[in-house]
Amino acid sequence: MGNDIKHDIKYLFEPGSIAVIGASQDKKKIGYSVFNNIISGGYKGRVYAISPKGGFIDGHQVYTDILDIKEEVDCASIVIPANLVVNAIKKCAEKKVKYVQIISSGFSEIGNDREEKEIAEIAKKVGMRVVGPNMFGLYSSSVSLNCTFSASKVIPGHVAILTQSGALGIAMIGKTAVSGIGLSSIISIGNKCDVDESDLLEYIIDHDDTKVILIYMEGVKKGERLISSLRRAVIKKPVIVIKSGRSERGARAAASHTGSLAGSDEIFDAIMKQCGVVRAESVEEAFNWCKFFSSSPAPRGYNSVIITNGGGIGVLATDACEKYGVELCDDQPLLQKIFDPVTPSFGSTKNPVDITGGAAAADYESALSAAAESKEIDSTIALYCETATFDSANLESMLVSTHLKHMKAGKPVTYALVGGDQVESTIASLKTTSIPLFNEVQQAVSCIGAYNQYFKFLDEITLASEEYEIDTDAINKIIDGALKANRSFLLANEGAAVMQAADIVIPLSKIARNINDAVKYAEEIGYPVVMKVVSKDILHKSDVGGVILNLETRKEVINAYEAIMHKCKGYNPNAVIEGIEVCEMVKKGTELIIGARRDPSFGPVIMCGLGGIYVEVMKDVSFRTMPMNRGIALSMLEDIRSYPLLLGARGEEKKDIDSVIDTIIKISSIVKKCGRITDIEINPVVVYTDKSGLKAVDARILIAKPKEENR
Amino acid sequence: MGNDIKHDIKYLFEPGSIAVIGASQDKKKIGYSVFNNIISGGYKGRVYAISPKGGFIDGHQVYTDILDIKEEVDCASIVIPANLVVNAIKKCAEKKVKYVQIISSGFSEIGNDREEKEIAEIAKKVGMRVVGPNMFGLYSSSVSLNCTFSASKVIPGHVAILTQSGALGIAMIGKTAVSGIGLSSIISIGNKCDVDESDLLEYIIDHDDTKVILIYMEGVKKGERLISSLRRAVIKKPVIVIKSGRSERGARAAASHTGSLAGSDEIFDAIMKQCGVVRAESVEEAFNWCKFFSSSPAPRGYNSVIITNGGGIGVLATDACEKYGVELCDDQPLLQKIFDPVTPSFGSTKNPVDITGGAAAADYESALSAAAESKEIDSTIALYCETATFDSANLESMLVSTHLKHMKAGKPVTYALVGGDQVESTIASLKTTSIPLFNEVQQAVSCIGAYNQYFKFLDEITLASEEYEIDTDAINKIIDGALKANRSFLLANEGAAVMQAADIVIPLSKIARNINDAVKYAEEIGYPVVMKVVSKDILHKSDVGGVILNLETRKEVINAYEAIMHKCKGYNPNAVIEGIEVCEMVKKGTELIIGARRDPSFGPVIMCGLGGIYVEVMKDVSFRTMPMNRGIALSMLEDIRSYPLLLGARGEEKKDIDSVIDTIIKISSIVKKCGRITDIEINPVVVYTDKSGLKAVDARILIAKPKEENR
Repeated sequence: MGNDIKHDIKYLFEPGSIAVIGASQDKKKIGYSVFNNIISGGYKGRVYAISPKGGFIDGHQVYTDILDIKEEVDCASIVIPANLVVNAIKKCAEKKVKYVQIISSGFSEIGNDREEKEIAEIAKKVGMRVVGPNMFGLYSSSVSLNCTFSASKVIPGHVAILTQSGALGIAMIGKTAVSGIGLSSIISIGNKCDVDESDLLEYIIDHDDTKVILIYMEGVKKGERLISSLRRAVIKKPVIVIKSGRSERGARAAASHTGSLAGSDEIFDAIMKQCGVVRAESVEEAFNWCKFFSSSPAPRGYNSVIITNGGGIGVLATDACEKYGVELCDDQPLLQKIFDPVTPSFGSTKNPVDITGGAAAADYESALSAAAESKEIDSTIALYCETATFDSANLESMLVSTHLKHMKAGKPVTYALVGGDQVESTIASLKTTSIPLFNEVQQAVSCIGAYNQYFKFLDEITLASEEYEIDTDAINKIIDGALKANRSFLLANEGAAVMQAADIVIPLSKIARNINDAVKYAEEIGYPVVMKVVSKDILHKSDVGGVILNLETRKEVINAYEAIMHKCKGYNPNAVIEGIEVCEMVKKGTELIIGARRDPSFGPVIMCGLGGIYVEVMKDVSFRTMPMNRGIALSMLEDIRSYPLLLGARGEEKKDIDSVIDTIIKISSIVKKCGRITDIEINPVVVYTDKSGLKAVDARILIAKPKEENR
Repeated sequence: MGNDIKHDIKYLFEPGSIAVIGASQDKKKIGYSVFNNIISGGYKGRVYAISPKGGFIDGHQVYTDILDIKEEVDCASIVIPANLVVNAIKKCAEKKVKYVQIISSGFSEIGNDREEKEIAEIAKKVGMRVVGPNMFGLYSSSVSLNCTFSASKVIPGHVAILTQSGALGIAMIGKTAVSGIGLSSIISIGNKCDVDESDLLEYIIDHDDTKVILIYMEGVKKGERLISSLRRAVIKKPVIVIKSGRSERGARAAASHTGSLAGSDEIFDAIMKQCGVVRAESVEEAFNWCKFFSSSPAPRGYNSVIITNGGGIGVLATDACEKYGVELCDDQPLLQKIFDPVTPSFGSTKNPVDITGGAAAADYESALSAAAESKEIDSTIALYCETATFDSANLESMLVSTHLKHMKAGKPVTYALVGGDQVESTIASLKTTSIPLFNEVQQAVSCIGAYNQYFKFLDEITLASEEYEIDTDAINKIIDGALKANRSFLLANEGAAVMQAADIVIPLSKIARNINDAVKYAEEIGYPVVMKVVSKDILHKSDVGGVILNLETRKEVINAYEAIMHKCKGYNPNAVIEGIEVCEMVKKGTELIIGARRDPSFGPVIMCGLGGIYVEVMKDVSFRTMPMNRGIALSMLEDIRSYPLLLGARGEEKKDIDSVIDTIIKISSIVKKCGRITDIEINPVVVYTDKSGLKAVDARILIAKPKEENR
């Protein structure tokens, strides 16, 4: 059962023994609920009740001290007032308990950070792992362990739930039971003083009985680790996430009640997509997906058909298919071949296939069987409007039988029924079966859509990271220099040097110390050029006449040199002027912004968008995290609304998209390899027509001061 | 009971007598269902069964011919095969029936247009009105008339439903009954060979017992009339619409199954908003709104509070508030004053107010009462996560009592409960009451959001139309000229003349016949100018050297005149050259597109957006219909994503928004007053900084050929 030294996470989910510290005889207390749930849940290991009061609970002996137990204790559940927890933790450490669940609340969630840290430190010293505090316990089907304080029954099954909200988690346990959703495990992660989502995922990912993972989260702390866990998870099973804090105000509410750092929802959304995680909009939707995913065969393809007895709901479902990305089969000769024999003449074999309001159970049977049996149809969405012609007694048996036919054929199917008594009672009667039955079309379609999204991700998965060889030594020297000068940002010329170290093309530029050099450099670079004063003592260079654009001749360069010197000295006679920079005048092109930042939760996040108005006014940008490769970089560009401008919209020529992709990968290589760089923004990157490259005009780079260094 | 001559629509909804043509003894036939539903539904008028077979149905005499009836027959319901309907209609006409409902199908919906037209013509001759064919009948609570063939029971109440889909309509009847939604009427509009939605709305708008109107539609034919009916309706009661065909594919599916013209969903959406109609995304959502709207007091304001026992669902609800436009009270001192006495110390009086997982029924009572009794809170969203600490026996009574408190205080409240058995059974038990109870937060929030949206519309309503005096005589002369030349478009100079007739500023321009005039005009207009050849024989003027830009001096104008003449004669020696146009060179500014088109459903629709890329690539435009006024024009601008550019984003100056609003109103005045103009697009409209006006550079105008004339 795992490895003693590392304390395999299996000891948490499959302990051989568990002690309840704070077990109580008082049936109103959580200490009773937890102990009783373990016993009555049929836990397969040894259970110990611990309480200074001693005595018996429902006939079970109560130990006054955990140290009195002679056998090994793998796991302890702590349900005592907060001020007593530190002491109990010390005893657990002495007893060499492997995992402790602290159900007690009253720690960092109300500002009591000190004791929480102390608990974590005591545990760390002896290698004991701690879940919580402020969590609701754990249910684990493998050993029939229910050490939650939830009063509800739990159905064992194939869905694992991790939740950041305790209250919602307990409500979810109840909801799974009435929805016929079987659980392989459910655990709330509480304040995460030690064990976090990623630790828990270690168990769940490799737990064969878990077919679907549902995570409710509000904020993410160690995002990079979570990403890597999610990546491992989705290869094995679908992961559904509900993340609250979508809206700005919601994020503030989440931050105030869990203290978690709620990052930008836009970034979170992009990362989840990139990880192949499907994101539900509501708890209801997530539950529908859980049930559907855990009981439906994998689709062989993405060609769906809608079968309906009413045109109206057929159209509503078609709308929903667009919303949820369900591809409707469009091959009319094929549809006709399959459905002509089972559709009345005044119906329609177009998709949605309309078997008309006169359709009885047998007609549904025929049409749905035709879909199930056809090689070319991969999934079916069946719609039913209650009619007087359909004998209600047959509805349930039709659903059971056509569902079974789809299961046998290995094809997903969902049903939406709209109507009154008949429909309600049928849905109620089949609620705890695995038939995906809804009273509106949206959910019937969203299940298929999310499921397909997951499998499409698996089809297209290319997680290989592509990188560029960059000169990290050169970059590190620049950073060292800036840090020595006590700066947390790089100067323009340092930023340019970093670009060069990563092989990103910047405008040509040289610093002239005298007129002769200025002319020489201008001729090397090629006219027209720009000239700028280089002086730390002159901040707003343009305002004082320190910048002159568009110089086209030798004579203009000479005049400009003199004019700049004259103006700058006039402005500040004491200014130290290092020289005058002679730069290439960048030709006009399409302006982009490409950047990267070290997100507090998720680590390096790459950003790109079209420059100027597009970013600043239209907020038209897209995000990706690591790994980065050409496919991901391209998908990033495709995600921005203004992408057609790069493709050559409005009669313009196509832009050099390859160079943009190169630059995205180079930037991601910089932030990956140079841990002290926290932010890069190249604005603008001027892109020219296809094969003509680009120029990174201005790179602003922020660096971490020594303390935060993680080079 | 209305007016005989006009055949008041009341004869349809409140007939004194009804004949069922095709009444049958066979219980499996629709002819039996309709007759039986009338009798067993307790209809208050006289009922006649008509069938050539004669005899009796359940003891009621069957007439073999409607003409055998001596008394007046206000209404007839026809349920016989399609091929017999024309003859039945003739008899009804002879009998002077006022309204006929044709339930029979087999007409235009399957391509049989001929008979449908014949029916409409027969009826029109005698002033008889026809609903359908291909409709499911009608339920009307005022006279307890259920002449549908639906098998379900109907609860009388306050919601009126108009549906374009018969199958969905029947399913809806069933669904209202199990959802505890009372109906004042429900009718399907079928093929609309005569009576349409607008006719039916005439009755429903003035029907005092109807408090909420729900319309399911797929496509709109007489949109302008519908708009005016909806406008009248929303002043009296909320109107909810479900429109399918949102997606392109859905629109195609709708078009194929109803033959209705499905216009752009974007335009439909804009128009509904402008009419104050709230649009539901699904049938389920629409029903939730119907129930909530028909039983909730009008909100006094829009300050909402969320009260929860779990932080997690509180955050989810906060997210939903942003989505559905619910304004959460933000006044922290106020919130503290109201909720401090009813919130435990470790809870939160911030909105969402968190009364914590330990909250029992009494705590909910206190917190919800505080919200109900506070003057400053206008509506409440109450959330409950099932917990072991809450005694389930008290849940139902808490809901009933706190709901009642809100009703007494005249405040809307909704509830979302998440959990298992306890929650499910409570929801089931209260389902047919008027308490708005949901098992997810989205719907609890969406009800409040949609309700507030309706009342906000009433607050802000300004339907006064603003117009400009435009010179319609001048415009009509231009159109007459173009039509004489057999054109359905105006030439550039004609377009410019239309702009001038509407007082829209265009660039200065004059046509010179000789060099002297050219110089004179250039000096009148002011340099720089543009010169263009004017000749019908030279199409691509720029390509042949017929256009020269940016002429800055007298000399350049003279040279340009000669160069253009030379090049054009070289290109086509036979070209008739009318002269050379000397135009103002338009200064750079922000480019907009302002346009209008006569939408096939909705009549004149005004469009605006920023020009170039914004319209062509980003599809960033907004739409409005008539009436137009300054407020509506401004809201149109505010709807475009790039609006900040007009306000002066990125350090630029504010643009002349007043002039843009003027132009929108002028354009709408043109399309309103000149019925033969079908499309106008001014592209670009160059707008300058505030108070500096704009220039309409190029106006493309399409006109209707004489046949379609509706001047």
